[in-house]
Amino acid sequence: MTTVPDNKNPFPENVDQLFLNCRVATMAHGRYNIIETAALAVAGNKIAWIGHMDALPDPVSNTARKTDCKNRWILPGFVDCHTHLIWAGSRAKEFEMRLAGGSYADIATAGGGIFSTVKATRAADEDTLFDLASRRMTHFLTQGITTVEIKSGYGLDLTSELKMLAVAGRLQQAFPQHIEVTFLGAHAVPLEFAGRSDEYVRQVMDVMLPEVKHQGIATCVDMFCENIAFSRKQTRQVFEKAKNLGFAIKLHAEQLSDSSGAALAAQMGALSCDHLEYLSDEGAKKMADHGTVAVLLPGAFHYLKETRVPPVETFRQLAVPMAVATDLNPGSSPVFSMLPVLNMACLLFGLTCEQALAGATFHGAAALGLADCKGSLARGKDADFVIWDVDTPADLCYLTGITPLKQVVIGGKPIHPENERT
Amino acid sequence: MTTVPDNKNPFPENVDQLFLNCRVATMAHGRYNIIETAALAVAGNKIAWIGHMDALPDPVSNTARKTDCKNRWILPGFVDCHTHLIWAGSRAKEFEMRLAGGSYADIATAGGGIFSTVKATRAADEDTLFDLASRRMTHFLTQGITTVEIKSGYGLDLTSELKMLAVAGRLQQAFPQHIEVTFLGAHAVPLEFAGRSDEYVRQVMDVMLPEVKHQGIATCVDMFCENIAFSRKQTRQVFEKAKNLGFAIKLHAEQLSDSSGAALAAQMGALSCDHLEYLSDEGAKKMADHGTVAVLLPGAFHYLKETRVPPVETFRQLAVPMAVATDLNPGSSPVFSMLPVLNMACLLFGLTCEQALAGATFHGAAALGLADCKGSLARGKDADFVIWDVDTPADLCYLTGITPLKQVVIGGKPIHPENERT
Ligand SMILES: [Zn+2]
Ligand SMILES: [Zn+2]
Repeated sequence: MTTVPDNKNPFPENVDQLFLNCRVATMAHGRYNIIETAALAVAGNKIAWIGHMDALPDPVSNTARKTDCKNRWILPGFVDCHTHLIWAGSRAKEFEMRLAGGSYADIATAGGGIFSTVKATRAADEDTLFDLASRRMTHFLTQGITTVEIKSGYGLDLTSELKMLAVAGRLQQAFPQHIEVTFLGAHAVPLEFAGRSDEYVRQVMDVMLPEVKHQGIATCVDMFCENIAFSRKQTRQVFEKAKNLGFAIKLHAEQLSDSSGAALAAQMGALSCDHLEYLSDEGAKKMADHGTVAVLLPGAFHYLKETRVPPVETFRQLAVPMAVATDLNPGSSPVFSMLPVLNMACLLFGLTCEQALAGATFHGAAALGLADCKGSLARGKDADFVIWDVDTPADLCYLTGITPLKQVVIGGKPIHPENERT
Repeated sequence: MTTVPDNKNPFPENVDQLFLNCRVATMAHGRYNIIETAALAVAGNKIAWIGHMDALPDPVSNTARKTDCKNRWILPGFVDCHTHLIWAGSRAKEFEMRLAGGSYADIATAGGGIFSTVKATRAADEDTLFDLASRRMTHFLTQGITTVEIKSGYGLDLTSELKMLAVAGRLQQAFPQHIEVTFLGAHAVPLEFAGRSDEYVRQVMDVMLPEVKHQGIATCVDMFCENIAFSRKQTRQVFEKAKNLGFAIKLHAEQLSDSSGAALAAQMGALSCDHLEYLSDEGAKKMADHGTVAVLLPGAFHYLKETRVPPVETFRQLAVPMAVATDLNPGSSPVFSMLPVLNMACLLFGLTCEQALAGATFHGAAALGLADCKGSLARGKDADFVIWDVDTPADLCYLTGITPLKQVVIGGKPIHPENERT
């Protein structure tokens, strides 16, 4: 075999690992960008080269560790850009009561709803929360999720919010996944502030945000703009304060009704607006104008038995990037894998397989401000990828109840989930 | 501790295994029947005793192997009473084309649809089919499925149907799960009989059925009564022949329209009618009259983006037993686990968690004529059960993307799926 010289994509001098005989979907710019009969080289924790097997130098590096991928597929690791992964307590019985015809009053009386999670999370000590969250992080590894966003928001008081963020920080230390931490103090109006949401918003702005900033334990601020949560005006106030402190911002917007939160967040420079079932055309235009990512969360749509879907066709026409995420949380989306999310994004929201996979990789990374290093496979990006035992990338959207994962690699390191902290 | 004598449920003399400190949902008669702080004794391949820990004799058997279940839940192994588990080829690209807006003509031109599976299955040799099916059987073990029904129906000629049934027979030998084999020669009118369905039905009746009977390789006969498949009259003809030969019968009925197939099948003594989205009240009454099990298949409903759900409330009122199953097949239900089926049965069809779990155990067994030995936990039944690492049985319906399975036991034997034939 003679080397095919490729001046645009020269093979690097120092390579630590070579993945040979694979098929690659790089997902660059949100497209498959398939390379059949490919090789992928890793140097340190970065991708050093991707190209056709034919374009490898002959002889190729003697020192690099070589893995024969046996024609399996390599895709970027999944970026789960919206999770509430830290909580205590269970909401399974609430789910059961609702299916058995229990009313909201019944469920509230039985201690259900978000405030049951707040109560259990406040009561749990940091070690307990860390152990519970660790199991979820370990499971995420088995599902090919290599980057995870984690929100606070079940504390709803200074001490408990800081406790959740401290747990997120410990997860960053303990796990190989890249974690982005988001402060979501304004997730719900806590019961002790019922009818006094402005006072709680003051707490968030004057007490919590400065302390979170001081401790440097979150990079982004999120909130829930909705009838049952915070108003557009409160959203603007919190975001102004957050931006002044140097936080990135994002918003739970237009999930249950149109509060025009997305337009506001987009204009203020939010990384993403999330949910968006009730987004108006005007809101979508603002998102397009400002390059805001639309994060679609079909798990919550499914569990809440919603019927109105986000305006996917409008997003396509306006070229609004669409990410997809698990929204992992105990109330409305106990979804512990990206694969069912891909399936639901396709079958419930009408995304193509390519769009769903781009949403779980390239656009998911963009939603976290990580497009430069995560979510696609190219020279210089982080070597975070998954080897899948499938016939075609579409299998990842098409199959239910099976995870055909062969190997996860993060920062160039092969991961063995059973050895990771649980 | 003193022994609480229980004359109705005396502890047996010879016990091989004791599962201690568990919580049990026996699912007897399709109800949870929860025993907290329970013990379960196995003798040979049967359940010898179930009761409260307090009711164990003191001292309990010295020779039995003891397993501390650490308060985990034990439920009967899942009975998947409707699968098309043996096939070759993939339909993922067809799924992808449909999502991208491809028409049926496009998909047919690209070689999609059921006849692509028929073509690939006819072309595959027996060993290839066995290997493909073996991977699915091994995966089923990891999902707590301990009894599996397997249909032919992608051969549609004598040789290929016999090949599929031979593969099912080899799976029976190779795997620990109990397998029930169903002959589904009348699954679709094969292309070479297009416009001549009566002639194909003659083949099924005069050639295939007698040979299947002669070889003794199936116990039940199924067919697809639908506009696009076989008429009610053809169904009656095939079923009469099948019954004369001593086969049990069951029917794919009322999936896409109302052909009144279910009423016919019920009146002829079918074990089950399956799908049933378009079942009439009259059909449901006939099923109730004859004790026919309604097998609900929410996977196919989900993948085909159907909007009309089966008449669950009518089934409740008439006390028609409801089973649920994966319908595992490459076209309309690539669903490899009972857990997403439970979830969809609850959220899409409105079953309660208890009804969904009863459908995957007790009523699933009834749909296979196995109610005497499978699908519930009681003295004398087969020791097929699963130890689940969950807070409550409802978790099995509530969680998505995670399989919290601790141990599968079949016929009293702990199963290690990784050691089973793949
Ligand atoms: Zn959320
Ligand atoms: Zn079927």
